[in-house]
Amino acid sequence: MADVPSMDALVALLRRLPGIGPRSAQRISYELLVRKRDLMPQLAAAFQQAHAVVRFCERCNNLSEAPLCAVCRSEHRDRSILCVVESPADLRAIEDTGVFVGEFFVLMGHLSPLDGIGPEALHIDRLSARLGETDLREVIFATNPTLEGEATAQFLAGLVPDGITISRIARGVPVGGELEYVDRSTLGRALHGRRLLDE
Amino acid sequence: MADVPSMDALVALLRRLPGIGPRSAQRISYELLVRKRDLMPQLAAAFQQAHAVVRFCERCNNLSEAPLCAVCRSEHRDRSILCVVESPADLRAIEDTGVFVGEFFVLMGHLSPLDGIGPEALHIDRLSARLGETDLREVIFATNPTLEGEATAQFLAGLVPDGITISRIARGVPVGGELEYVDRSTLGRALHGRRLLDE
Repeated sequence: MADVPSMDALVALLRRLPGIGPRSAQRISYELLVRKRDLMPQLAAAFQQAHAVVRFCERCNNLSEAPLCAVCRSEHRDRSILCVVESPADLRAIEDTGVFVGEFFVLMGHLSPLDGIGPEALHIDRLSARLGETDLREVIFATNPTLEGEATAQFLAGLVPDGITISRIARGVPVGGELEYVDRSTLGRALHGRRLLDE
Repeated sequence: MADVPSMDALVALLRRLPGIGPRSAQRISYELLVRKRDLMPQLAAAFQQAHAVVRFCERCNNLSEAPLCAVCRSEHRDRSILCVVESPADLRAIEDTGVFVGEFFVLMGHLSPLDGIGPEALHIDRLSARLGETDLREVIFATNPTLEGEATAQFLAGLVPDGITISRIARGVPVGGELEYVDRSTLGRALHGRRLLDE
């Protein structure tokens, strides 16, 4: 509103967040200013605090408040298996499954020549160092099943030293999904990657 | 994440905003922490600033950074017409139409006995004072076309002094809508409230 520049500034910033359009940004601002004023100083403090203390793990790029993240600090992880993911959110999704006991490396993106994202942006030097550690036996590429994710996995596979197993997470029908509604290319992948029933 | 309490705190606060569920709150937090870190101090400052300077107009309850809002300060508004709305967002929606030249009164809610919102919560004293101003000729109730909005308009109409015209915004088919998809009660209203073609 012409009269309330502080609100306009807030709306403009909120619109830059993912999934928040102009209407949502306005609705959130009104809700805060009219009904939830106490939340504003709390949000301000939370943003400041997160900005000040959250950084990236020096070993794997995961989000952390310490030099090494919880996974890298743990003494209960299997250092012989390395899972390469695109983002800290992907890392968390895999952690939430509870089935992976190895370590991670977060690329912080994927190769995307059109956007000018080449190998140097993906922390290749540190990944190479990690791939050279002596107890490593398997690298799992868990990049997204997108064109860019596949290309990134293909490219990075070339950096893995001989003798180390290279794998890719399985692509197939999502658990709980109905075949009728699964897209053709996923269903094709699922047929192609079929497993023996007793495996 | 167990390891990043500042992020968990941020996610928890974001979830309290309208339209933001647990997944969105996490997605926003990751986006900020990984790709848009510069936005965090800006957001913190914007929340602090808005919290500090945005208040309610002393005359109409609209959001304002001055004691009186832009509408109430203006010398170009018709003080003989008062439009009663539920919220500052409703006021803005009406202002955005550009067709209303009168003044406003923002109730900051609607009657809702089940939620314990009685007349006293709707700034009835100040509305009564406003309704007593000598140059007032018409009061337009622009509360929402909901059960509570209608009940609120009905109740408040009883406070309007004799001799002042009382009106309600028209209910009917939305402009650009298709009759086939309009709900029965709206269509019924539209028929009931039909106007002569040359009006």
